[in-house]
Amino acid sequence: MDTLPVYLDCDTGIDDALALAYLMAQPEADVRGIGTVSGNTDSGTAARNTLDLLALLGHDDVPVAVGEHDFLAAPYAGGAPHVHGANGIGGVQLAPADRQVEAESAAEMLVSLARASAGTLRVIAIGPLTNLARALELEPRLPGMVHSVTVMGGAALAPGNVTAVAEANIANDPEAAHAVLTAGWPVNLVPLDVTMAHLLEEPHRQRLAESERPAAQVLASMLGHYFEFYRDIFGRGCSAMHDPLAVAIALGSVVAESAPRVPVVVDTSDGPGRGQTVCDLRGKYRGYEDRRGATCRVVLRVDADFCEHLTLSLTEPATSAPSPAAA
Amino acid sequence: MDTLPVYLDCDTGIDDALALAYLMAQPEADVRGIGTVSGNTDSGTAARNTLDLLALLGHDDVPVAVGEHDFLAAPYAGGAPHVHGANGIGGVQLAPADRQVEAESAAEMLVSLARASAGTLRVIAIGPLTNLARALELEPRLPGMVHSVTVMGGAALAPGNVTAVAEANIANDPEAAHAVLTAGWPVNLVPLDVTMAHLLEEPHRQRLAESERPAAQVLASMLGHYFEFYRDIFGRGCSAMHDPLAVAIALGSVVAESAPRVPVVVDTSDGPGRGQTVCDLRGKYRGYEDRRGATCRVVLRVDADFCEHLTLSLTEPATSAPSPAAA
Repeated sequence: MDTLPVYLDCDTGIDDALALAYLMAQPEADVRGIGTVSGNTDSGTAARNTLDLLALLGHDDVPVAVGEHDFLAAPYAGGAPHVHGANGIGGVQLAPADRQVEAESAAEMLVSLARASAGTLRVIAIGPLTNLARALELEPRLPGMVHSVTVMGGAALAPGNVTAVAEANIANDPEAAHAVLTAGWPVNLVPLDVTMAHLLEEPHRQRLAESERPAAQVLASMLGHYFEFYRDIFGRGCSAMHDPLAVAIALGSVVAESAPRVPVVVDTSDGPGRGQTVCDLRGKYRGYEDRRGATCRVVLRVDADFCEHLTLSLTEPATSAPSPAAA
Repeated sequence: MDTLPVYLDCDTGIDDALALAYLMAQPEADVRGIGTVSGNTDSGTAARNTLDLLALLGHDDVPVAVGEHDFLAAPYAGGAPHVHGANGIGGVQLAPADRQVEAESAAEMLVSLARASAGTLRVIAIGPLTNLARALELEPRLPGMVHSVTVMGGAALAPGNVTAVAEANIANDPEAAHAVLTAGWPVNLVPLDVTMAHLLEEPHRQRLAESERPAAQVLASMLGHYFEFYRDIFGRGCSAMHDPLAVAIALGSVVAESAPRVPVVVDTSDGPGRGQTVCDLRGKYRGYEDRRGATCRVVLRVDADFCEHLTLSLTEPATSAPSPAAA
């Protein structure tokens, strides 16, 4: 099997934890390094959570680097404890891994992995884009040195989640997001338009809880907290699988049914649109076409039953291909 | 029959011409005055077009006032001749009406009509909102003096039409739009989300062309120009009925199936979101609820077959109620 070199940038985070577990369960993924950034929680806590999760998952060999604590234009302001719990992972206490983070920063790790991967590195960013923006400063040729950048973030034609139009990962650091989304590398943007359509429901959570795999049981426990947050949004306990879906798209495990390449910028003004991913989707009415020169694919629809695939991946030893969505 | 006092503010404009013809065909509408504003064309040309159309429609008794030529924060920059033709009405030459506009401005007319209507005046704005903003300056108590304000404009979860996120009426004068949409009066906002779903197709246009009513024939002729513009957008000759739909909603002839009252502001920054109607539709996922204190209803869906209703209204003497949409 050809392996796919991966650098993951995360702010672990409950759905980051699921994304990490999903990623480590994919036999084709060759995870060369993980960087953390502030977002759901601070970058140091995110690194601790990541190390502990990797230990639980039996992958103590993957290096973890701490990334930026503050955003490009603003200090970190405390994360989202109402969503992810005070410790970022829903209050669940993990057994502490007996190793430490790398000496290099997340941005340095990304640059060195890109240099060592001959254009094959898949960058997956499921937190604010501060580390990626710093890496672009460190190595301006970086956009030509990677396979692709998949970003969970933004809202195209869907409502935002932290303002009417802005999604949390982008809103946390709009300046970084603008730099990353317009850097010219091939980006898969995985916005709320598609992630809010893939919900892990209580029966999925039950299957994780009842799994013989300890990691699945731990994830089910974290999801209890996450489900409560989403009760206000969906009217029932469930949760969007933002970050795991981005990982699946990055690896090609899930194929987008609609993902036009269109101009995308991030609103870095101080107006009411600050943090919005402004995606030019005016082609909607006659079927989207890729726009000449655009480098960002905006993933609008995925037809696979992703949450079934995710649940299988987390509860069974072997990987399963996603099945088509029910009609 | 109870009549509904109406003030119409328009930038005539091809779909304004259809809206005007539709409005004058509704027996319950008591059109007390019409003001013009720059937008599709300049306010003076819009007034000339309006006078000539009223003559054609046999309604030479409705006073017309010229409104603002320039926008609050920018000069008028030439309108949209590529959409509406150089004369605003697709190059069609109308017989000149033998009367002139009123001496008062559109804003003055709106204020005096509101004062004389004891809270019953329906304000319908189908162009940029400059005149309404000026009227709010002239009479700060205006929001408490009218029945409602129905605005064709904006894009909530739909793409914009002049930028990725901004619609033309709002983008022409974002400062005026912000003042109008946040003034506290009851607003029906009729954005592209709903207007782009109601298309006049070639068979409708043929019925107008073959009607015995001269005004219908003239409107069919204008639509030839408008259809060509929309060919790039929909991939066929047809056109959205933005302005007529707003008139129908204002009169209650068409009832919105989804129109939540939510916070709405207009982006008046200089960022990429300038001119966007930022509507807080985060309630989408569990069914919209009206938000406490919100005064702006955002019309998202209308289930009537509006373009059939419109075509009947313009071709038959008697008014017809819209039929339910086909399943």
